[in-house]
Amino acid sequence: MKAIFFTLVTFFLHSSFLLIQKKQRIVFFGDSITQAGVQPNGYITRLGEMLKQKGLENNYELLGAGIGGNKVYDLYLRMENDVLSKNPDMVVIWVGVNDVWHKRTSGTGTDADKFEEFYTALIKKFKEKNIKVFVCTPAAIGEKTDYTNELDGDLNRYSNIIRTLAKSNNCNLIDLRKSFLQYNLENNKDNKESGILTSDRVHLNELGNNVVAAEMLKILQNK
Amino acid sequence: MKAIFFTLVTFFLHSSFLLIQKKQRIVFFGDSITQAGVQPNGYITRLGEMLKQKGLENNYELLGAGIGGNKVYDLYLRMENDVLSKNPDMVVIWVGVNDVWHKRTSGTGTDADKFEEFYTALIKKFKEKNIKVFVCTPAAIGEKTDYTNELDGDLNRYSNIIRTLAKSNNCNLIDLRKSFLQYNLENNKDNKESGILTSDRVHLNELGNNVVAAEMLKILQNK
Amino acid sequence: MKAIFFTLVTFFLHSSFLLIQKKQRIVFFGDSITQAGVQPNGYITRLGEMLKQKGLENNYELLGAGIGGNKVYDLYLRMENDVLSKNPDMVVIWVGVNDVWHKRTSGTGTDADKFEEFYTALIKKFKEKNIKVFVCTPAAIGEKTDYTNELDGDLNRYSNIIRTLAKSNNCNLIDLRKSFLQYNLENNKDNKESGILTSDRVHLNELGNNVVAAEMLKILQNK
Amino acid sequence: MKAIFFTLVTFFLHSSFLLIQKKQRIVFFGDSITQAGVQPNGYITRLGEMLKQKGLENNYELLGAGIGGNKVYDLYLRMENDVLSKNPDMVVIWVGVNDVWHKRTSGTGTDADKFEEFYTALIKKFKEKNIKVFVCTPAAIGEKTDYTNELDGDLNRYSNIIRTLAKSNNCNLIDLRKSFLQYNLENNKDNKESGILTSDRVHLNELGNNVVAAEMLKILQNK
Repeated sequence: MKAIFFTLVTFFLHSSFLLIQKKQRIVFFGDSITQAGVQPNGYITRLGEMLKQKGLENNYELLGAGIGGNKVYDLYLRMENDVLSKNPDMVVIWVGVNDVWHKRTSGTGTDADKFEEFYTALIKKFKEKNIKVFVCTPAAIGEKTDYTNELDGDLNRYSNIIRTLAKSNNCNLIDLRKSFLQYNLENNKDNKESGILTSDRVHLNELGNNVVAAEMLKILQNK
Repeated sequence: MKAIFFTLVTFFLHSSFLLIQKKQRIVFFGDSITQAGVQPNGYITRLGEMLKQKGLENNYELLGAGIGGNKVYDLYLRMENDVLSKNPDMVVIWVGVNDVWHKRTSGTGTDADKFEEFYTALIKKFKEKNIKVFVCTPAAIGEKTDYTNELDGDLNRYSNIIRTLAKSNNCNLIDLRKSFLQYNLENNKDNKESGILTSDRVHLNELGNNVVAAEMLKILQNK
Repeated sequence: MKAIFFTLVTFFLHSSFLLIQKKQRIVFFGDSITQAGVQPNGYITRLGEMLKQKGLENNYELLGAGIGGNKVYDLYLRMENDVLSKNPDMVVIWVGVNDVWHKRTSGTGTDADKFEEFYTALIKKFKEKNIKVFVCTPAAIGEKTDYTNELDGDLNRYSNIIRTLAKSNNCNLIDLRKSFLQYNLENNKDNKESGILTSDRVHLNELGNNVVAAEMLKILQNK
Repeated sequence: MKAIFFTLVTFFLHSSFLLIQKKQRIVFFGDSITQAGVQPNGYITRLGEMLKQKGLENNYELLGAGIGGNKVYDLYLRMENDVLSKNPDMVVIWVGVNDVWHKRTSGTGTDADKFEEFYTALIKKFKEKNIKVFVCTPAAIGEKTDYTNELDGDLNRYSNIIRTLAKSNNCNLIDLRKSFLQYNLENNKDNKESGILTSDRVHLNELGNNVVAAEMLKILQNK
């Protein structure tokens, strides 16, 4: 009887160990910013290093799925192949810059209502597969702090759409736009249009990658 | 007696054959032009009447699935709900005007490479379900014949993409752009920007609906 | 002695007559907002009434010179006919909304560097003719207070150009954008996109006309 | 003695002929295409060489006045400084590509009605000064011959505006758009988008410069 009990205890301990052991697979789903995220100094690489420093490297497996120029509907098109097929436990969606920016650069941005429609469809599909969804607001198109970045109004609007969707769909929100605005208000006293957290108004420089990785770590641990 | 029995058997077999030969269900998948197609004078209604005149009303069931403002990626988003769920035998895709037009009106058109990508994905999904695919070129944004319709160049480019996809994917092509251009070159001697086949440069007037229905009938019968 | 006295009296009468007589002619030079300014409730009409209440109606003559859809270069084109030919003492330039807005609505806005170039040319021409120049910042394209008006970033940028030109050219600045922002931050708690000072995000409603007239009165008296 | 007399007469006749026959000064007024026109292989340089080959180098003085990115209203702004101040006998206006192109690339093209308005104002000012006006249609934005150059429709429309203005104002028309289209239809069998007469769809390659110079020579001699 004792032996049986001991065996059972061992079994459950082992099981729970296995449960603990199973790495959480996270897919980072986005545009060129995420495509660069897997580079040596990229935010995904940096997040991996931060997790390692905390001894959590065996808890997470981080997969990049970013493609340059992607808008929300491009993510929808490749969702099956690039996310669902990987059977992730979590997905971090980071999209929106091109949806706003391309209105001005090529006349091919995304209408706000369509942005919401496709974003909602993405969340729904992931939730149906029991994938935990993290959503990010688009960080920046320009870092000026005197409210003259041309596309800030529109970027704020699309960020609000994402914030509202996060609430109504019970997703984890990584509010990068808020973080970037705050960081710039404090640190970009010369009102530069880039060079603080971005290299070119949009893409992350080394510090930007660190800030993003740190934000994501914070949310991951609080989830 | 045997003969009678045999005749009866033949008769029932024939009947069941007729019963088996179910109506071909066609979904017309598109934008506002197709949304208007099910109206009393719409092209889908007209096509139904033309089929009836030929005694073919029992061979086809015509279903409209047009939504105003749709671009190719909007079709992709609602393909499951609005086409696949209807189990059609055929689908007629007619999209492209907004993909070009919205570049100018709202900065939210569709890049040519994305247009091809989503269009290809649509065709592939339909073919996987053994749905026969008909593709239409976008008929017109302006009917002037002196080559000054602002968006003709781009519309021709997107039409060429569809023509190429029709060939490479072995789809039936309904070349409405070609038909409309030819009709206008012959009949729009005063170089009007609308009023020949369209009411407003884009949407079909009565004659336009007739011309489209006639083109579709021709292709359906030759398929 | 008598003769001298008479001469002096005549001189002073004549002087005071001249001082009283000579009305300051002000031309309001702008777009559709200014075109509407001469309507019964328009801001120019209201300014006239305010001047009358202060007993200053004989000091100023107010002339409207607004044309719908005008951008800064349109003002430059008609400067000769619509301003210089009237020999005004002062000109109030109010332009900029269309230069920003038309980028999105018709692809025909004005580049920031060209905006500055034409605006500078206007100021220079007026100053050459000894016309006192007042410049206004563009008040609003949308009244939302959560920083999601699509074009706020660009509108702020063009407003800054005007503020800088006012300084460097020693012009009187009527900072309508600042006034409108402040008013909305205090009074538009529901974050409406119009209906506070504008009827349609851009054009003035009755309160908007009053606010603009009051701002102009303040600057006129302090000049 | 008679011979000496005859020589003297000949000499004076020749001198007076030279004195009377002053050089015709031509200003070429335009955008980056004209700015490049004064380069070693540029169309203005080539035209000069062609005139020399015909022994006409003393009849004409050719001055370039092109600035990159210029639209019709930019020409209007610098007309005084860059053309009128040179007291030319003739001006060749070549503008329009940026007015159309910038609609797509930066949202800052020129509306068709404004294009006509400024173009008319230019012609009027030059005619008032007795300057003979030559107007050119914009040659190309893309050289494809299958009618898929994105902006051809709009470019044709603006070319028609110029053709109509040439007629109604009795100006000399140099129809470069027509020449380029014809040349490409005959010589661009592979439907290339550039490399025939342009290096990049818009700016002239060596052959393009020659074709333009030859067209201008033809019109100059027939004027």
